Amino acid sequence: VSEYRVIGVEGLPEIAAGDDLGALVAGSIELEDGDVVVIAQKVVSKAEGRVRALDEVEPSRYAREISGERDPRQTEVILSEAARIVRLRPPLVIAQTRHGFVCASAGVDASNAPGSGTVVLLPEDPDGSAERIRARLRELTGRSVAVLVTDSFGRAWREGTTDVAIGAAGLDVLRDLRGERDPAGYELHATTIAVADEIAGAAELVLGKLSRVPVAVVRGLDVAGSGRARDLVMPPSRDLFR
Amino acid sequence: VSEYRVIGVEGLPEIAAGDDLGALVAGSIELEDGDVVVIAQKVVSKAEGRVRALDEVEPSRYAREISGERDPRQTEVILSEAARIVRLRPPLVIAQTRHGFVCASAGVDASNAPGSGTVVLLPEDPDGSAERIRARLRELTGRSVAVLVTDSFGRAWREGTTDVAIGAAGLDVLRDLRGERDPAGYELHATTIAVADEIAGAAELVLGKLSRVPVAVVRGLDVAGSGRARDLVMPPSRDLFR
Repeated sequence: VSEYRVIGVEGLPEIAAGDDLGALVAGSIELEDGDVVVIAQKVVSKAEGRVRALDEVEPSRYAREISGERDPRQTEVILSEAARIVRLRPPLVIAQTRHGFVCASAGVDASNAPGSGTVVLLPEDPDGSAERIRARLRELTGRSVAVLVTDSFGRAWREGTTDVAIGAAGLDVLRDLRGERDPAGYELHATTIAVADEIAGAAELVLGKLSRVPVAVVRGLDVAGSGRARDLVMPPSRDLFR
Repeated sequence: VSEYRVIGVEGLPEIAAGDDLGALVAGSIELEDGDVVVIAQKVVSKAEGRVRALDEVEPSRYAREISGERDPRQTEVILSEAARIVRLRPPLVIAQTRHGFVCASAGVDASNAPGSGTVVLLPEDPDGSAERIRARLRELTGRSVAVLVTDSFGRAWREGTTDVAIGAAGLDVLRDLRGERDPAGYELHATTIAVADEIAGAAELVLGKLSRVPVAVVRGLDVAGSGRARDLVMPPSRDLFR
């Protein structure tokens, strides 16, 4: 690839439970074969009804204890979404989700939520979400595209968040260079590139958090394949960076 | 921004010590004001002569002990580049460099090195490298561009490397949304986006490790500013992800 484009998809309405995201995207941009359609997790979750009303949540004593300045009902939702607490510095919680992702608040977020008394959870199965949207786009447009569902995660060692893939369909999420050789003939034996996360970050640059542009199309990359975002979860035994 | 492009800069020669990278880039692509010129660390280091011949290196006893299957002279160079060893699983070494970056082998790399008996080190001052190349590009083209020097780093919790910024000039490396409000009026109080790292990853998708395309131009983003890559180093006291 010598050039590609990242296009923000504008004009989408506010998303609510039951909305047909595939149809909304297909109606907003002319897709091409090989496009990667990148969708912010927040709108996928809203379309899937993964929204919790805080007035239906009863916080546990533990949630009250660790909540700090946060609404303890929100902390209760975070705990319910966490498979494991990685780090706790009230009100900050870093948790591993049931999918295996390590992120702030187990992915539970109040910003861009549909009402001030609600929070948005990660999709139950983000890879499945991506696959369903991909199938719907193919059905509506006849185009073979890839779909990424992305969220903003903090990292160890470095300031700031970058968007990463939490759901994927129709592309190879990792490009494995092991066994290949550089131009000098040196074997690149330890190089696996997290292509899906780099595409997610590339898309974030047009998505923005403030403007209502929750979808981007990345056009001109050659990444078709069959990986899943769950393949991006690092097994603890091999993780030297944590 | 609703659209931007990422363009691989082809036709650059193999880079050697003393080469004028700015002139080579300026001669290979017509730059525009606001472009972000992304340059792989390896060629910046080579141009700066940051290459070590292994037959001039005498490994210490410690380097021999922890070297595993790696050439102990290469391990000696890694130790000399490390300010602190973060994790050791021979032959793998995760280290913090003097710049503060945490990465494999303290950034010392034998792939794409100029000869089989050499290794390439990170630039002494990657922010300074970026600033010098930026000034040279302005001198030669009259254009005001930003420059990123990038490298492929592993991460905690997730598989694969992504390219990140280790040197920067002429852009804001972090976009701080604290105090801003989402469309629903909810304050985005914890959101700082590592824009420079997302641009670095976006560029990697055209750079590739195997083809000789060590430079990309990212065109159409509005990121001009004055940040430095060293601002991306997370102070330990605030790092909940390590």
